[in-house]
Amino acid sequence: MHIVILGGDGYLGWPTAMYLSRKGHQVTVVDNYFRRESCRELDVAMLYDVPSLPERARIWHELTGLEIKVVLADLAQPENVRNLFSGDVSYDWAVNENFTGVPEAVVHYAEQPSAPYSLIDHNHANTTITNNLLVTNNLMFAVKDMAPDVHIVKLGTMGEYGTPNIDIEEGWIDISHKGREDKFLFPRQAGSIYHTSKIMDTDLLWFGVRMWDLKVTDLMQGPVYGVDTDESLLDPRLRTIFNYDEVFGTVVNRFIVQAVVGYPLTVYGKGGQTRGYLNIKDTLQCVHKALETPAEAGELRIFNQIMETLSVNQIADLIATVGKTRGHAVEVKQLENPRKEAEEHYYNPVYQGLLDLGVIPHYLTEKVVREMFEVVEKHKSTIRKAIIFKGIKW
Amino acid sequence: MHIVILGGDGYLGWPTAMYLSRKGHQVTVVDNYFRRESCRELDVAMLYDVPSLPERARIWHELTGLEIKVVLADLAQPENVRNLFSGDVSYDWAVNENFTGVPEAVVHYAEQPSAPYSLIDHNHANTTITNNLLVTNNLMFAVKDMAPDVHIVKLGTMGEYGTPNIDIEEGWIDISHKGREDKFLFPRQAGSIYHTSKIMDTDLLWFGVRMWDLKVTDLMQGPVYGVDTDESLLDPRLRTIFNYDEVFGTVVNRFIVQAVVGYPLTVYGKGGQTRGYLNIKDTLQCVHKALETPAEAGELRIFNQIMETLSVNQIADLIATVGKTRGHAVEVKQLENPRKEAEEHYYNPVYQGLLDLGVIPHYLTEKVVREMFEVVEKHKSTIRKAIIFKGIKW
Repeated sequence: MHIVILGGDGYLGWPTAMYLSRKGHQVTVVDNYFRRESCRELDVAMLYDVPSLPERARIWHELTGLEIKVVLADLAQPENVRNLFSGDVSYDWAVNENFTGVPEAVVHYAEQPSAPYSLIDHNHANTTITNNLLVTNNLMFAVKDMAPDVHIVKLGTMGEYGTPNIDIEEGWIDISHKGREDKFLFPRQAGSIYHTSKIMDTDLLWFGVRMWDLKVTDLMQGPVYGVDTDESLLDPRLRTIFNYDEVFGTVVNRFIVQAVVGYPLTVYGKGGQTRGYLNIKDTLQCVHKALETPAEAGELRIFNQIMETLSVNQIADLIATVGKTRGHAVEVKQLENPRKEAEEHYYNPVYQGLLDLGVIPHYLTEKVVREMFEVVEKHKSTIRKAIIFKGIKW
Repeated sequence: MHIVILGGDGYLGWPTAMYLSRKGHQVTVVDNYFRRESCRELDVAMLYDVPSLPERARIWHELTGLEIKVVLADLAQPENVRNLFSGDVSYDWAVNENFTGVPEAVVHYAEQPSAPYSLIDHNHANTTITNNLLVTNNLMFAVKDMAPDVHIVKLGTMGEYGTPNIDIEEGWIDISHKGREDKFLFPRQAGSIYHTSKIMDTDLLWFGVRMWDLKVTDLMQGPVYGVDTDESLLDPRLRTIFNYDEVFGTVVNRFIVQAVVGYPLTVYGKGGQTRGYLNIKDTLQCVHKALETPAEAGELRIFNQIMETLSVNQIADLIATVGKTRGHAVEVKQLENPRKEAEEHYYNPVYQGLLDLGVIPHYLTEKVVREMFEVVEKHKSTIRKAIIFKGIKW
């Protein structure tokens, strides 16, 4: 299958590219280095440097003989999206510079993915909204106009649902009201501008699916943790980016860094905030399984992409436990919550669809945490404590 | 009360400005002439010319002694919104150039309001999304950062709800699911990119209300018809803009123009599409009543702003009936529907809240239609038949 990955330089994009390449697919990645540039803008470092995207693709080819074509382009510009379908594209790295042909599937990761980033100020909120919606809209129109059979696999977020007082279904709910019935998108109410931009993506794709019979899978993902995947074990230069700051670092990854440098684990408020989590390896499995069994024409297929639910306190306790066995003096510290969110709440999401497709879940075990500690400890000397917590409020 | 009207040059914005000015409020209008420029871009004419916005304000002052301050600015630029609260604003017309002070309320009409415009192509879709969301987001952040007590009165659309198979409540619905309960935004699923951008506005404002205790009234308006209001009767130069083309002309206004020039009334498909309608005079009443009784802090108050529901066939029949009494050979013609929409459907919206606030409804009677015919007939010689129907498909 020919698959284009939008946002192919990111935390999930690059590992997905390698995974699908090794499964025998022809992969093209597109990115505009938004994350790398934002890290520079905000002065937040990554745990280790990663090569440029063309260089990563070159190393991958050198080690495996497999080609991942690279395009460096801003997908908020419609022509850059349309060129991926017309063939009017020039590759920034490729073994064979010829156009691979119209893709059969597009995996869409090309979004500003951070809640705190989206709430730094009105300008960052605007950037989040315009980037995320323009990329999605450009993709939707390009597919409708140029390649209506393409399967769009879009990364959504469990955060779209918020923490309602009813069970969270996989995307949809049947409502009976005053003796009549209809089926609707499950109610959405998010806790940040970023998460709200993902609700808007859903609004947009649901429109496109109804109007133009597009094929869309929306993967409502929880926070992802992890560093290595089977492919990155080939060579450390193939590892995905690893942020440990408040803006771009996801909670498990960030807490392990904090434990290693003796920075207290920063639990916001009571720490009862419960979310669904998954290992980065499971993101790859989920996207792959979704690609193997595409949505039907006119179907917005929604899966809740999590493998277990955990509270912040549970995560902090687990990391403290493992950290202590490795000689780190780990302290857990409750901070006044910089966010407006429920610190104790009902949370009962359904997450069965991807398991039914054959995904084999990993869980956040002591062993998994230990392996992450091993990676982080090797890079301890590079960690900048000052960037861990910035206190962005909303 | 000091009230700022965003989109104060538009079909509803300018009549609202005069209405509120006459009620004794201090009014500032802001506009970037988006509608006038789009009419030029798309080569669609208005039924008659209207003076520039400063000139309208000057005429209003000359006739009434009342001041409507004018700012010409693009509100998608955050600084242009923030300046309205900081006082760092220069007026393009004013009797007294001093800053009036932080407004107590903002009426937000500054959106690209046309469904067909939003579906001309991907570029017009992008313009719709970015303009509408950036103005709303800029307003939300300016209020949060600079004037959190401001009451935002936002024009939504009944089109956000679509045509569900259950009764449409005023914005909210209680859902019982698997033995638990919660209250949510009423499900939304719109029929165009424009209407979808309004869903996104709701997503955004609902976030702001929950996070920052903003005071927001969202008026879910149906298609508006009419020309004159009590204020425009003072002088025809004060009349609101009147579009009769497929892109910017609302259905009643457009059909009357078609009847006058012998252009068949273009019913899409079976004509059973039912919507809620209101007279432009009732828009002014509704906005005024909403301003008089503001939403509470932390309340997203939603009203369905319609006065009656009508099918396209009912409207066409009424206009044909009145047209024939005035000597016009009115033909009703069913066209293949250029849109994907239900042509026969259940439709039962609640619209009680604004009546409870004291709004006295007008209805689409033969008399009202006759008065509109009188205005249109006077301008018959200027009507360009070629621009009535463009066949924008989606």
